[in-house]
Amino acid sequence: MTTGDGAQTKFLLDESEMPTQWYNVIADLPTPPPPPLHPGTHEPVGPDDLAPLFPIALIEQEVTGERYVDIPGGVLDVYRLWRPSPLYRAHRLERLLDTPAKIFYKYEGVSPAGSHKPNTSVPQAYYNHQEGIRKLTTETGAGQWGTALAFAAAQYGIECEIWQVAASYRAKPHRRTMMEIYGATLHSSPSEVTEYGRSLLAANPEHTGSLGIAISEAVAMAAADPGTRYALGSVLNHVLLHQTIIGEEALLQLAQAGETPDLLVGCTGGGSNFGGLAFPFLREKLAGRIDPTIRCVEPAACPSLTKGEYRYDFGDTGGLTPLLKMHTLGHGFIPEPIHAGGLRYHGMAPLVSHVHDQGLVEAVAIPQRECFAAALQFARSEGIVPAPEPTHALAAAIREALACKEAGESKVIVTALCGHGHLDLAAYEQYLSGEMVDYELPDAEIAAAMADVPVLA
Amino acid sequence: MTTGDGAQTKFLLDESEMPTQWYNVIADLPTPPPPPLHPGTHEPVGPDDLAPLFPIALIEQEVTGERYVDIPGGVLDVYRLWRPSPLYRAHRLERLLDTPAKIFYKYEGVSPAGSHKPNTSVPQAYYNHQEGIRKLTTETGAGQWGTALAFAAAQYGIECEIWQVAASYRAKPHRRTMMEIYGATLHSSPSEVTEYGRSLLAANPEHTGSLGIAISEAVAMAAADPGTRYALGSVLNHVLLHQTIIGEEALLQLAQAGETPDLLVGCTGGGSNFGGLAFPFLREKLAGRIDPTIRCVEPAACPSLTKGEYRYDFGDTGGLTPLLKMHTLGHGFIPEPIHAGGLRYHGMAPLVSHVHDQGLVEAVAIPQRECFAAALQFARSEGIVPAPEPTHALAAAIREALACKEAGESKVIVTALCGHGHLDLAAYEQYLSGEMVDYELPDAEIAAAMADVPVLA
Repeated sequence: MTTGDGAQTKFLLDESEMPTQWYNVIADLPTPPPPPLHPGTHEPVGPDDLAPLFPIALIEQEVTGERYVDIPGGVLDVYRLWRPSPLYRAHRLERLLDTPAKIFYKYEGVSPAGSHKPNTSVPQAYYNHQEGIRKLTTETGAGQWGTALAFAAAQYGIECEIWQVAASYRAKPHRRTMMEIYGATLHSSPSEVTEYGRSLLAANPEHTGSLGIAISEAVAMAAADPGTRYALGSVLNHVLLHQTIIGEEALLQLAQAGETPDLLVGCTGGGSNFGGLAFPFLREKLAGRIDPTIRCVEPAACPSLTKGEYRYDFGDTGGLTPLLKMHTLGHGFIPEPIHAGGLRYHGMAPLVSHVHDQGLVEAVAIPQRECFAAALQFARSEGIVPAPEPTHALAAAIREALACKEAGESKVIVTALCGHGHLDLAAYEQYLSGEMVDYELPDAEIAAAMADVPVLA
Repeated sequence: MTTGDGAQTKFLLDESEMPTQWYNVIADLPTPPPPPLHPGTHEPVGPDDLAPLFPIALIEQEVTGERYVDIPGGVLDVYRLWRPSPLYRAHRLERLLDTPAKIFYKYEGVSPAGSHKPNTSVPQAYYNHQEGIRKLTTETGAGQWGTALAFAAAQYGIECEIWQVAASYRAKPHRRTMMEIYGATLHSSPSEVTEYGRSLLAANPEHTGSLGIAISEAVAMAAADPGTRYALGSVLNHVLLHQTIIGEEALLQLAQAGETPDLLVGCTGGGSNFGGLAFPFLREKLAGRIDPTIRCVEPAACPSLTKGEYRYDFGDTGGLTPLLKMHTLGHGFIPEPIHAGGLRYHGMAPLVSHVHDQGLVEAVAIPQRECFAAALQFARSEGIVPAPEPTHALAAAIREALACKEAGESKVIVTALCGHGHLDLAAYEQYLSGEMVDYELPDAEIAAAMADVPVLA
């Protein structure tokens, strides 16, 4: 596998070269995305509606039309713990596949929390701290987001209270420990702490929870206390804004490598990792400077972009959040437990849904065993054991690289390896033992969940 | 905690600046270390004695007097997957401790296997592959070394068979999965595969194993097959040689930071992480260019340097290996299960033992709860969750930083953070829940284990 050819593997940037602005793709889109609506009035929500949940600075970022937003010094300081993150050329994977394609991956697993999530948890904790907030609440499923927020809260000395989906809370004690190391308080969701949680437990004491339910609980707790705010790890505009530092760095690093991308491919759950990588490239594409295909990859078990409807739906199961125009499987949707790893959210970020609706990006769904097969090929060649989420992007990158081999094309493929899988090894064990099965979400189940989605006038 | 002051956090080197030679401290020592002896004749062992176990290139490195050894291109290629590793200035930990000391840590957890071990597993796999070997055997305790060798073997397409201490094999299924992801074959040790293992299981079917027993099994399997060799993850000269890339890089990075070390502190189990960091600094110290104190830190539960005797003993429990002059607790020593994490080996690298005996380095033992308290301070300030092993070095660094605060001294403290703790979270859970206890190895137990150590004429 190794040739001693001395080829450059990592494209690095100095701390002094780290981007100092986030990029807001809305400024460059042909049409703006539809606004969020108040769940009661169905009118566009204003800053006042969001103020009980988010600090002013983040509400401003949620609605801004400015092309660039400065990253505060107090955020850049913490980013420097791991950023700029490396861009790798996957020489060894290319050799394994015997492909003429050039594969690059931007690796976000170097963050202390092990994923791309701290790119937004850090500024969210920063702005809340600036505005005198003393506690943040949030939900977590697979645990990546909870870990990221716990880490960020510790950096600014604020409290962090996390509702973890009961199924994960029981199955992944190590994730819980990781969050507790950072000083966070954990609840299994549904919990006895909120009225909504109590009502669900009363109906079913063994309830395994869902991301949408955990969001409802965390939102309710934040809304009830003026010193507490809520933090969301994906979906919203300001979250995707913060993640664009991934794509901004990758552009600089690809220029360093002297390459122009033909294909960008990122996994999509809520959409923040994908948006973070893709939007700066989309800016360059819209400006006519590059022309890559941009592809979302989602699990066949939770196919919001490829099978969900593009319409207004709640962000949570309890119906507490504003209505968001997004690709959705219905806010009551709960993914099958046989689907390993994250990417389990019923909806897709309004911004990603919008650019997909505008035909600026495409989407594909891949079954999980193909993803884990790709992960093993990747780990045995490139060394890094990926989180289950980015294995979807790797599987799609490998599909393309093999098509390149067939066609004799030397495409430049860029993907985001958004996290390592050190805390997801149970899923690998399932795959290695042959116990993992594929699952494609049936249309009838989607139709059933969509029946509860409000119909707007 | 964060000030927005923009202070540089990471000191990085380009791939082009990566050292291309390992450093052999023996060339600069006032006296050479005593040679290994044949277990039967008690005469110094020659290359022929070692040939059934190791490839010629590594045997040559084991006994070489050359000051520098070139790193082959086929090794540098794989090193580039994570090297050069970053040197961090621990601004946030310093602020937390309110100390005038400057703390730097060299972070080896960026390797795919998550520790410093691939620095030697990669060249070991490389040289074996070069000499036509098709399989490597080894032992692993906490799992760091097994993971590193499995990763390296996958890089060169050779097989890897690992004997994992039974207690770890049962308690740490995720470690096993990590090695299997890289394609390795695992055995619980003692195993039914070797005669020695079968004899131990016959006496006690529930035997929990030890590192020394697992070494005996892996050595026996390698010796029995001409296409198989054995790989050791610490202790031997060639292993410490490979690890010196840590210290060579750290010297360049400290120069970049414009600092001169007053104290170097590293944890010691078998001694490879410590030697890797310290020996290049020791060269500079012996040459009179710098004058740092160099300090080993070991667990109070396995205190080979501070309480063991410096004499010839076997490297394994079964008495198959050459006799090594080293600090030892007796080759029959098995550490208490209440000691979490690695650093459980009965002996200390002959080279580290020798420089300690010569008064060139000092040693201290620290109980584990102080180490985990230090780990929490570190994780909540610097973000990275350390492996249990380097928490010993962190605890010692914090002791010194607090002494600096007391004395108003601004010492420069350099330590090696030799791995992350993502696969050691059960130990953190034990600490956080208050269940972890300290354990100091009683003198009587050492005396009992030492009674079996051979007395040489």
